[in-house]
Amino acid sequence: MKNCIIAQSGGPTVAINASLAGVVEECITSHAYDTVYGSLRGIMGVLNNDIIDLTEKVTKDNHFLDTLKITPAMYLGSCRYKMPSAEEKPEIYEQIFSFFEEKEIKSFFYIGGNDSMDTVLQLSKYAKVHNKDVTIMGIPKTIDNDLCHTDHTPGFGSAAKYIAATLTEIAYDISIYPVKSVTIVEIMGRDAGWLTAAAALARTEYGLGVDLIYLPEVAFDREQFVADVAAVMEKKNNVLVAISEGIRDKCGQYISASTASTDSFGHSQLSGAGKALEYLIADRLGTKVRSIEINLPQRCAAHLSSATDLEESAELGRTAVRNALKGVTGHMSVITRTSDAPYTVAYDVANIAEIANEVRNVPRSFINEAGNDVTAEMLTYLRPLIVGEPTITYKDGIPQYASFQHLYR
Amino acid sequence: MKNCIIAQSGGPTVAINASLAGVVEECITSHAYDTVYGSLRGIMGVLNNDIIDLTEKVTKDNHFLDTLKITPAMYLGSCRYKMPSAEEKPEIYEQIFSFFEEKEIKSFFYIGGNDSMDTVLQLSKYAKVHNKDVTIMGIPKTIDNDLCHTDHTPGFGSAAKYIAATLTEIAYDISIYPVKSVTIVEIMGRDAGWLTAAAALARTEYGLGVDLIYLPEVAFDREQFVADVAAVMEKKNNVLVAISEGIRDKCGQYISASTASTDSFGHSQLSGAGKALEYLIADRLGTKVRSIEINLPQRCAAHLSSATDLEESAELGRTAVRNALKGVTGHMSVITRTSDAPYTVAYDVANIAEIANEVRNVPRSFINEAGNDVTAEMLTYLRPLIVGEPTITYKDGIPQYASFQHLYR
Repeated sequence: MKNCIIAQSGGPTVAINASLAGVVEECITSHAYDTVYGSLRGIMGVLNNDIIDLTEKVTKDNHFLDTLKITPAMYLGSCRYKMPSAEEKPEIYEQIFSFFEEKEIKSFFYIGGNDSMDTVLQLSKYAKVHNKDVTIMGIPKTIDNDLCHTDHTPGFGSAAKYIAATLTEIAYDISIYPVKSVTIVEIMGRDAGWLTAAAALARTEYGLGVDLIYLPEVAFDREQFVADVAAVMEKKNNVLVAISEGIRDKCGQYISASTASTDSFGHSQLSGAGKALEYLIADRLGTKVRSIEINLPQRCAAHLSSATDLEESAELGRTAVRNALKGVTGHMSVITRTSDAPYTVAYDVANIAEIANEVRNVPRSFINEAGNDVTAEMLTYLRPLIVGEPTITYKDGIPQYASFQHLYR
Repeated sequence: MKNCIIAQSGGPTVAINASLAGVVEECITSHAYDTVYGSLRGIMGVLNNDIIDLTEKVTKDNHFLDTLKITPAMYLGSCRYKMPSAEEKPEIYEQIFSFFEEKEIKSFFYIGGNDSMDTVLQLSKYAKVHNKDVTIMGIPKTIDNDLCHTDHTPGFGSAAKYIAATLTEIAYDISIYPVKSVTIVEIMGRDAGWLTAAAALARTEYGLGVDLIYLPEVAFDREQFVADVAAVMEKKNNVLVAISEGIRDKCGQYISASTASTDSFGHSQLSGAGKALEYLIADRLGTKVRSIEINLPQRCAAHLSSATDLEESAELGRTAVRNALKGVTGHMSVITRTSDAPYTVAYDVANIAEIANEVRNVPRSFINEAGNDVTAEMLTYLRPLIVGEPTITYKDGIPQYASFQHLYR
């Protein structure tokens, strides 16, 4: 017997189930594993023996993988469990690997972001040191697009498409009144401005679209911001601004109302950059001003996914399996862009030790000198990632996704 | 020569251009008018002689009306101009009707909400008193669904579909963590809870979906709300709540941080019902809590329109023209539902005097006794309105809508 197990972790994206589908597909078509298990709620499923049989799912339902590919969030559930190091808590590692032994698990696939890749690193190190015959592979995902050694991350293209389409629609909405107004849209991105940059795709030749873009990679100057908005307003009535939730002043202080609480990984809980700037504009320019926090839809609006993103996410899943079968361990599957036009990519794996806990920021050359817009280089980078619309099935007007009933036991 | 003119006013919906397309279509195919004009920015275009030739647009571009039908916001622009009465400012009315005479305008079509229907009423009264040979017709629109004498309003079905689909996706997103959480979604609706009620469509048989719904039609009780949330949390981890921005306590006070400023129609500017309840839950239950203000996308996300809504909106435009040609004036086109299943409707017109400045609230029988959910009657009412997906053309991953360049002169 030779089985494998897959888990998902971190925050949701609309592409993380496409990667799961890719892993399952390759595991089954390669006939390399007897049973493909799913670990419910990240590594917690392994620790709690809370698993499901994905091979059975596929056998029973011909459409399962197709529906899974367009389903948002994590089919297997998620966790925010920070793995202790093997030195700190060896018993956790012993428990995981004895579970693997018991279930005859030869490969563990972890689909997740930065924190999940750290788990992959810890587990693969432990396996090496203790001569465990289990390959441990990571598959990336994050709408933040901030993982190193991959051209971009699964989930990012769909989130970018959501931002581009939604800001286009907001630009239409705000353009109709003959009175001056400022609309500030706050977009996710704690440290990296990639997703906010996608607002630049919401532009027309004649002026309707996003006017100013501020990323966390450049120190935010309140006075310059007011001056920038006033300058745009000289030329058009309705100013549309995109800001990242993570913008900071030159002292590194978040432009925000509250930065007090932190999550279990020590990240600051941000809120209010948009609101803070709304008040600033109202106070300084006295014009009508509104702030919009795009919030969860940017990471869960599967009905507006990028087909390119979903296809690549599935292929990254397959790549991880193919490499695991070659005996590769402690690696993450990655995308290398081989050409911008026509857009082509290649798939490979990279050493997890060089990826985990590293953040890839927007390079300064992708941001204009004034720090209030992106450059043509950024647009060239972004454009292919949002292309294509997957087929979504609607029933009674509502998009149909895979059932999460197994998480409701 | 016999011409007509169309204007749009009030807040945007995704269906108001479908009505415009319907009016233009019927005007042209009936051959009853030589030229169909569009008045830019509501009645302001008439007052400022700021008009465009829509007949020419259609002649030059075969696809113009099809693109228009799926374009969000107002193609002709909008205004928030409150028409003074003819007694107050007769010169405004003289100016409008001498413009009509000069341009040989025989029919004026105004697509808008409550405030715009008041303009239709004033103009038709003036025309009658002063023997002006101009028919004045209203075509409804509002995502609030609060106009009388029509089963529902154009724009509502699409907004309801956006709410149903988006809350479905949010329900997926929040369901993955094995920790208790409360998510409060604030939905538009100052006085009427119709749109918030559409959250009830985002439900599955196994528990994923919206748990509690609060409309402005029932007095909101903070203590009962905390108890309701706690009761749901006994049964599931992740509680999803939909509230209307207009919820009020038993003294009529908005559940909100600020109610000070008002717009030019005397409406209170609301914000913060969601935030106020977020703080309440954090304080009282100590659980993880998030509030989401759906904001502009619920009224401008044309890519997620209801095909039923768009088709009906166009037909209401055609109905107004057909009646104007029969000499009807001072009326608004309306929808009567003739059957729930199969869903069928009839189109007619109703006297504007019985519609303008009236608000249609959600009947108490559509809300459950506890005031924290809707009834089966409401679901029967809502379901057919969100059905069907129009064909949206994407270019480079972004939905393509009609150009608003003429508003950028």
